[in-house]
Amino acid sequence: MSVGTELLLGEITDTNAAFLANDLKGRGVTLHFKTTVGDNLARVVSTLKQALERSDLVILGGGLGPTDDDLTREAIAEVVGEIPVVDEVYLEQLRGFFLSRGRTFPEQNVKQAWVLPSGEALPNPVGTAPGWFVRPTSGEHKGKIIVALPGPPREMKPMWLEQVIKRLKLPQSGFYHRTFRTFGIGESHIAEKLGELTLASNPSVATYARRDGVHVRVAASSGTLERARTLAQLVEERVKSALEGFVYGTDDQTLPQILARLLSAKGQTLSVLESMTGGLILDELSNESGSSAWLKGGAVAYTLGAKQRYGVVLEPGVSEVSGEAALEMATRARSFFGSDWAISTTGVAGPELLEGKPVGTLFVGIAGPSGSQFFATMGAGDRRTLKERSSMSALGLLWRTLLADKGEAQMGVNP
Amino acid sequence: MSVGTELLLGEITDTNAAFLANDLKGRGVTLHFKTTVGDNLARVVSTLKQALERSDLVILGGGLGPTDDDLTREAIAEVVGEIPVVDEVYLEQLRGFFLSRGRTFPEQNVKQAWVLPSGEALPNPVGTAPGWFVRPTSGEHKGKIIVALPGPPREMKPMWLEQVIKRLKLPQSGFYHRTFRTFGIGESHIAEKLGELTLASNPSVATYARRDGVHVRVAASSGTLERARTLAQLVEERVKSALEGFVYGTDDQTLPQILARLLSAKGQTLSVLESMTGGLILDELSNESGSSAWLKGGAVAYTLGAKQRYGVVLEPGVSEVSGEAALEMATRARSFFGSDWAISTTGVAGPELLEGKPVGTLFVGIAGPSGSQFFATMGAGDRRTLKERSSMSALGLLWRTLLADKGEAQMGVNP
Repeated sequence: MSVGTELLLGEITDTNAAFLANDLKGRGVTLHFKTTVGDNLARVVSTLKQALERSDLVILGGGLGPTDDDLTREAIAEVVGEIPVVDEVYLEQLRGFFLSRGRTFPEQNVKQAWVLPSGEALPNPVGTAPGWFVRPTSGEHKGKIIVALPGPPREMKPMWLEQVIKRLKLPQSGFYHRTFRTFGIGESHIAEKLGELTLASNPSVATYARRDGVHVRVAASSGTLERARTLAQLVEERVKSALEGFVYGTDDQTLPQILARLLSAKGQTLSVLESMTGGLILDELSNESGSSAWLKGGAVAYTLGAKQRYGVVLEPGVSEVSGEAALEMATRARSFFGSDWAISTTGVAGPELLEGKPVGTLFVGIAGPSGSQFFATMGAGDRRTLKERSSMSALGLLWRTLLADKGEAQMGVNP
Repeated sequence: MSVGTELLLGEITDTNAAFLANDLKGRGVTLHFKTTVGDNLARVVSTLKQALERSDLVILGGGLGPTDDDLTREAIAEVVGEIPVVDEVYLEQLRGFFLSRGRTFPEQNVKQAWVLPSGEALPNPVGTAPGWFVRPTSGEHKGKIIVALPGPPREMKPMWLEQVIKRLKLPQSGFYHRTFRTFGIGESHIAEKLGELTLASNPSVATYARRDGVHVRVAASSGTLERARTLAQLVEERVKSALEGFVYGTDDQTLPQILARLLSAKGQTLSVLESMTGGLILDELSNESGSSAWLKGGAVAYTLGAKQRYGVVLEPGVSEVSGEAALEMATRARSFFGSDWAISTTGVAGPELLEGKPVGTLFVGIAGPSGSQFFATMGAGDRRTLKERSSMSALGLLWRTLLADKGEAQMGVNP
């Protein structure tokens, strides 16, 4: 159950449900229904009652804030027929949280310290709203499990993975899956390379076009996880060999992660000079913990004047949106920042043409210890989409170049 | 109702529901529940029955394909107690569609030509699955309306807008709403400032904690849009005056948008020197079309060496993570890039402490034509959350500073 009128007003898209659905599937739990309901006590109560009638486990997301509109706690209490009590220890922590930020504690926040007699509060390291894990010990819902999680995904996900899973005591899962993340190959070409592998249902092989490239997922079910893994093994080997040279990572591994690992292993550093991608590459790389060790520096330079500050010199007649410019930018960034490697982007994010070049034009420059090169691609989409795709292209090209430099045909795949 | 097992497996996110919710809201139709159910006839039937008991209009998305898994037509027929008949004219069109593509007509596709006695088929110019518009003329669901639409958004949306809306004969919309976006104030303090304003239901005032600050939404319904607007007017004024100094924009306006507008209006430029936020501020600013006109340049500089390239000099004993450092970074960035304004960030994104400062520490420096200042805040969350919150803080502080510089107490709110 997703609770929140804003979800029924179409103002935000509910991504929590997809995350939970996917996670539950991997643990062998079948999701039968998902209902969204607004901030209305009677409707949350009736939906929760019905959900408990047809399911063993009901997960609620949202409605745990401090305001009068946040009614999830009230609804659960009503359905299980219990009166919430204030957890004095947690209340003190809450007060301390506000005090440490120099703010007075708003009295309405007291309800975030409520617990039910048959429940326990789940700590929230990211926000002030603890979750609830309720298992009624009597009454018509005895033995059922009700889990209430905060709405913001950054609070919900760690609480689900770190607090809820261990309390659920799920039977051993007989579901095994592995995702291969690819760069530099489209979905239909992958389908051609995989051929009849995609026709079987167990193990199954499915492709998904994602923002960071096409993902190929091998999944198998059997009595135990070990048997499912064995069942998938041969197909996994065939997928890996069919996609050789295109797979940069598996499961949750991202390109910035893989690059961080490659650079750290080599003891080498990187710098970035961005025009087209406007800071997005730096943002993605700096999401990696410890990036300050290998990300030597970087800058956004749109204008020629800004580029010149980094030593960029273009011959008369050479466009700022060109392969030559990308090459010069990467070479100069490498010297300016004193790094082993440098990447640059120049292109047209739109909505207007630039230097007569169409929207979607992208040049990526890569400079390294043994030389430099540039790559040209053309993308489609709005400004943000183009920035994202261009950033992915630049990181993917760097990945390929780093591997070639290492003299390895492929890596980044876990054994 | 969204129908499809794939939605319960978390493989795709349901964006149709958000589209319909948003569109219905603008037409004065209140969405009370949204349920997702898998490709299982009994469960689709029970969910549809229940939906008809509590609503006048039920919209189903998905399950209109030709396969055995596509059960929406079968479920509707069962619930309204009618037997589908084949629309021979449409069947011929379907056959022609396949023939014209040199393909044989699969007999299982015949069911896409089904219609119910109390329903009509809605043409699909994009795909082969027509929609259904069903209005039972007898039985327990007499007078209710059931609409079935294809799952793919590019088929669903035009069918909804071009075929369904005109058949619904909705009364003139009388729904008005306006969202105020705030910076620098928490949800519970907003609630305190709004006081009893949040208790009324028409006009209603609700608060939502979002990644970019707390949003406050005023909504009113009445016979016509004009009357709803008039009804909301007084409350809107009171909300505006209660939150004076904290509202940076209305409805869909973002901080980068507002900053772009303010800087363009002043004919001034900005540069950025990021440590803590690692490129995210530059990324967000460069999402704005035409940002190259006012975003003079920017860089990510983690190490002291990298900062020194921009002219940063720290007195002995001054930490890189300090207000003095933020101030120096902003001042030097302003000279280096030759901009009117500069912002800087230095802090600890984690997961490790830095210079003995705790994770979450943030110093923002702002340098402008009439001086420079720094701000210190402390946040909580993982590395990505801290980067996002810090970026938002820096942009919000710049917004405040730009306004003060202009000698205006508040702006960014549409008249």
